[in-house]
Amino acid sequence: MTLLKGPGEARHYDGSSLRIGIIHARWNTKIIDALLAGTRKALAAGGVKDENIVTQSVPGSYELPYAAQRMYASSQTQSSTSAASGLIGNATDLLSQSASDLTSLGQGKKEKESGSQSTAPFDAVIAIGVLIKGSTMHFEYIADAVSHGLMRVQLDAGVPVIFGLLTLLTEEQGLERAGIAGADGNGGHNHGEDWGSAAVELGVKRRGWMEGRFVE
Amino acid sequence: MTLLKGPGEARHYDGSSLRIGIIHARWNTKIIDALLAGTRKALAAGGVKDENIVTQSVPGSYELPYAAQRMYASSQTQSSTSAASGLIGNATDLLSQSASDLTSLGQGKKEKESGSQSTAPFDAVIAIGVLIKGSTMHFEYIADAVSHGLMRVQLDAGVPVIFGLLTLLTEEQGLERAGIAGADGNGGHNHGEDWGSAAVELGVKRRGWMEGRFVE
Amino acid sequence: MTLLKGPGEARHYDGSSLRIGIIHARWNTKIIDALLAGTRKALAAGGVKDENIVTQSVPGSYELPYAAQRMYASSQTQSSTSAASGLIGNATDLLSQSASDLTSLGQGKKEKESGSQSTAPFDAVIAIGVLIKGSTMHFEYIADAVSHGLMRVQLDAGVPVIFGLLTLLTEEQGLERAGIAGADGNGGHNHGEDWGSAAVELGVKRRGWMEGRFVE
Amino acid sequence: MTLLKGPGEARHYDGSSLRIGIIHARWNTKIIDALLAGTRKALAAGGVKDENIVTQSVPGSYELPYAAQRMYASSQTQSSTSAASGLIGNATDLLSQSASDLTSLGQGKKEKESGSQSTAPFDAVIAIGVLIKGSTMHFEYIADAVSHGLMRVQLDAGVPVIFGLLTLLTEEQGLERAGIAGADGNGGHNHGEDWGSAAVELGVKRRGWMEGRFVE
Amino acid sequence: MTLLKGPGEARHYDGSSLRIGIIHARWNTKIIDALLAGTRKALAAGGVKDENIVTQSVPGSYELPYAAQRMYASSQTQSSTSAASGLIGNATDLLSQSASDLTSLGQGKKEKESGSQSTAPFDAVIAIGVLIKGSTMHFEYIADAVSHGLMRVQLDAGVPVIFGLLTLLTEEQGLERAGIAGADGNGGHNHGEDWGSAAVELGVKRRGWMEGRFVE
Repeated sequence: MTLLKGPGEARHYDGSSLRIGIIHARWNTKIIDALLAGTRKALAAGGVKDENIVTQSVPGSYELPYAAQRMYASSQTQSSTSAASGLIGNATDLLSQSASDLTSLGQGKKEKESGSQSTAPFDAVIAIGVLIKGSTMHFEYIADAVSHGLMRVQLDAGVPVIFGLLTLLTEEQGLERAGIAGADGNGGHNHGEDWGSAAVELGVKRRGWMEGRFVE
Repeated sequence: MTLLKGPGEARHYDGSSLRIGIIHARWNTKIIDALLAGTRKALAAGGVKDENIVTQSVPGSYELPYAAQRMYASSQTQSSTSAASGLIGNATDLLSQSASDLTSLGQGKKEKESGSQSTAPFDAVIAIGVLIKGSTMHFEYIADAVSHGLMRVQLDAGVPVIFGLLTLLTEEQGLERAGIAGADGNGGHNHGEDWGSAAVELGVKRRGWMEGRFVE
Repeated sequence: MTLLKGPGEARHYDGSSLRIGIIHARWNTKIIDALLAGTRKALAAGGVKDENIVTQSVPGSYELPYAAQRMYASSQTQSSTSAASGLIGNATDLLSQSASDLTSLGQGKKEKESGSQSTAPFDAVIAIGVLIKGSTMHFEYIADAVSHGLMRVQLDAGVPVIFGLLTLLTEEQGLERAGIAGADGNGGHNHGEDWGSAAVELGVKRRGWMEGRFVE
Repeated sequence: MTLLKGPGEARHYDGSSLRIGIIHARWNTKIIDALLAGTRKALAAGGVKDENIVTQSVPGSYELPYAAQRMYASSQTQSSTSAASGLIGNATDLLSQSASDLTSLGQGKKEKESGSQSTAPFDAVIAIGVLIKGSTMHFEYIADAVSHGLMRVQLDAGVPVIFGLLTLLTEEQGLERAGIAGADGNGGHNHGEDWGSAAVELGVKRRGWMEGRFVE
Repeated sequence: MTLLKGPGEARHYDGSSLRIGIIHARWNTKIIDALLAGTRKALAAGGVKDENIVTQSVPGSYELPYAAQRMYASSQTQSSTSAASGLIGNATDLLSQSASDLTSLGQGKKEKESGSQSTAPFDAVIAIGVLIKGSTMHFEYIADAVSHGLMRVQLDAGVPVIFGLLTLLTEEQGLERAGIAGADGNGGHNHGEDWGSAAVELGVKRRGWMEGRFVE
């Protein structure tokens, strides 16, 4: 089948062993929240375990590249610490766990006991922000610097950074791209879902690339 | 609670052990001064001690990335000097103290004696400048180079650089964003407050990242 | 002969010993597919063997620079692995082979036995994507970051990265540049053909440059 | 005193021990010459000795970043050569002196004998060029690449590079910014003066930064 | 004499010992050919020997930065090879000679015997391309990436890269800037001449910079 629009047919990638970092800005929270939900939904569909997703936030989009870079470095530090000392590593993991609700914390704790929570370096980082054109030129300079900054981070670090930055002319465009537009609040397409599945795909392909294999 | 506008809900971060550098341009001084005041207010609200804030200025915004980079490097130099020789380090600190008024100098001296003034590397740098569109293309090229330059500095150095550059089409826009617009001179929202609290948040999160912890 | 338009007269370059990586986005699949076909046609015309072309995809164009960088690094890893252990290297090659149809897989296997399939680092990488202007500013920021990102990858890695990114204002422009416009679906010029022959030319010239020779 | 426009109040910085490099393009010579004069005037007012200013030119503004980088590297080479061999270093200095008129050459020679001419690395570099919008897009791409290029040079080398690039829509704008507009040829404000004093200020602050001191 | 337009008065620089690389795109061949002729004319006027000019081409302008980088690296490789083994080096030189016609080849061979052909690293590289605005955004993204790419190459490698990229809105603008406009085909000014003399000037100045001398 050939589609003119859309990301084309993707195979299903098994993300069950992946660890994913999400960094999001907090401006335009309603849109951000919906995008985050869409992202997590796609990660779950790809088999990524909830306890292997670390989510953090920064105030605005300009902070995304720096935070993406540091979060990844932090996951590397965590990984080497865990390797060095099993038990202490485990305790650190619990402290560092991004527990947005008690359910997932409990689940994480349980799976921890069975050794399933990962402290490996992230296989991909997803950076999410929403910029809306205002009356100054702030939008243009932020959007440009962040687009290049996220590109730099992934090329420097060798980890995929999924570009979840919406650069919008109106707020309505954001509602549509977060799948919460219209009278019933579920119009449009939630781009977070695309970002989540892109993270799984790139994370899996990256593992191949690291070993000299080309995973299609 | 979900807001459509604004930086969303931030937790309160304890900045009492942080050291912050502020670099600001001097063009459009009135706006700059108000932004500086807003920034300091938010830093204080975050618990950052006055003697642990180093403020410096440069003539124009194009100098901000270079100065931010050098100020941070200077704080690193200062830190290693202090570590090497306690007493001499202390004397150097006094000399290097950015003493904008005698009150804070006196306070700094007193707290110095009780060992509370920091000579550690900055936990965050805030870069503040005001660019207003003029009749040439100066505005566009400066704004673009500075936005990318500040991004580079933070990614190179691993220290958060808060983007306090207003890129305005009119002077009135600056007054509004400095919270000094309107007939009574207190209209609008002082963006410096956002920058100050962003510096505290990023400074605290960075400490976590350095140790492999994800502080939410 | 002097032409005012077009890439000028190129000599024929012998690509029979080259190994080429192709990375393409999947958005706007119909156009992408035609461009891929054009690219392969030109590679074949340049003598590049089908089993020495590795094709991979990513969801969107923003992922192209990262994937181009990693694919090239993967080919280097593969090369050193092959050199280290002949038999194991061979097995890895088969696994990593991008087998889009059984015919080429069979062919690859056969030629493998006669030792003709390459596991050398790629001589060039071709990055293919199609961006079409939409209602937000997504197009502009993606196109800009990807153009610079691909430029960086080739300058960092020392391998030519052919710029196969179409930055279009309308879908019709894409059909024309993929050679599938008009009522009969074969109008316009397939730019993939230019990219394929550019990859062969640059791949051959690069080998000269590596040895201090200037191949005209 | 608070000004809404202008670079704000700067303290007076003592530039008497500084060494400054000036690199300027030659396109739009009349404007360039006036800007150079303004720059030198401000350097003199800051106490920089004439023999400690090295001025060089390049044809166009695109060459400014490269030349700024190389001039600074050259001053470093010169410095280490001088340190290695006093007498030979001195001879080299005389040869390398940028002698635009015989007066300054004579003066340089005399002060050389009293040991006052510096062969230290530059404390700041000032890059001066004038770009005027023409009928092609040359202006836009040059201005953009040069703005980013000069930013890179200062961040790479750790030496301040003062941005003396005028990006103008009309020639008249240049005359005004060089202080040579109007019927009597002295209208407007000579921006070279700002650049000269910025170089002194940044040069002095940089010395502090190198030693872990914050000079306000 | 003071000119308001033009590159100002340049001294004459002696290019007789310089080695220059030229890389040009082939799109818009007629304009390119005229620019190449102008460039060579200026190089000859600067004393650069024909056998010390290496010319290579790439299909389009996007390839210019990569090719400029690799050509320069190739000249460095060639130089070290020549130094290592005289006779073998000579043979390599002949093979690598860019011989666009038999006359220059014969001349090169003769001068080779008298030892005048250089195998030193290039003193400057000239990058020539012609971009004309089309109906997509291809022009904008290519022009931007190439302008920054060439800037990077010269700052990375420390060799001047002369910016010979015409970024045009119409074909006629190209004819004028190549000196082949109008009914008689010699209208306008050939910008290649400026590029050739800039290469000689920068090449000579660079040699000074490398030794800590400032050649005016």
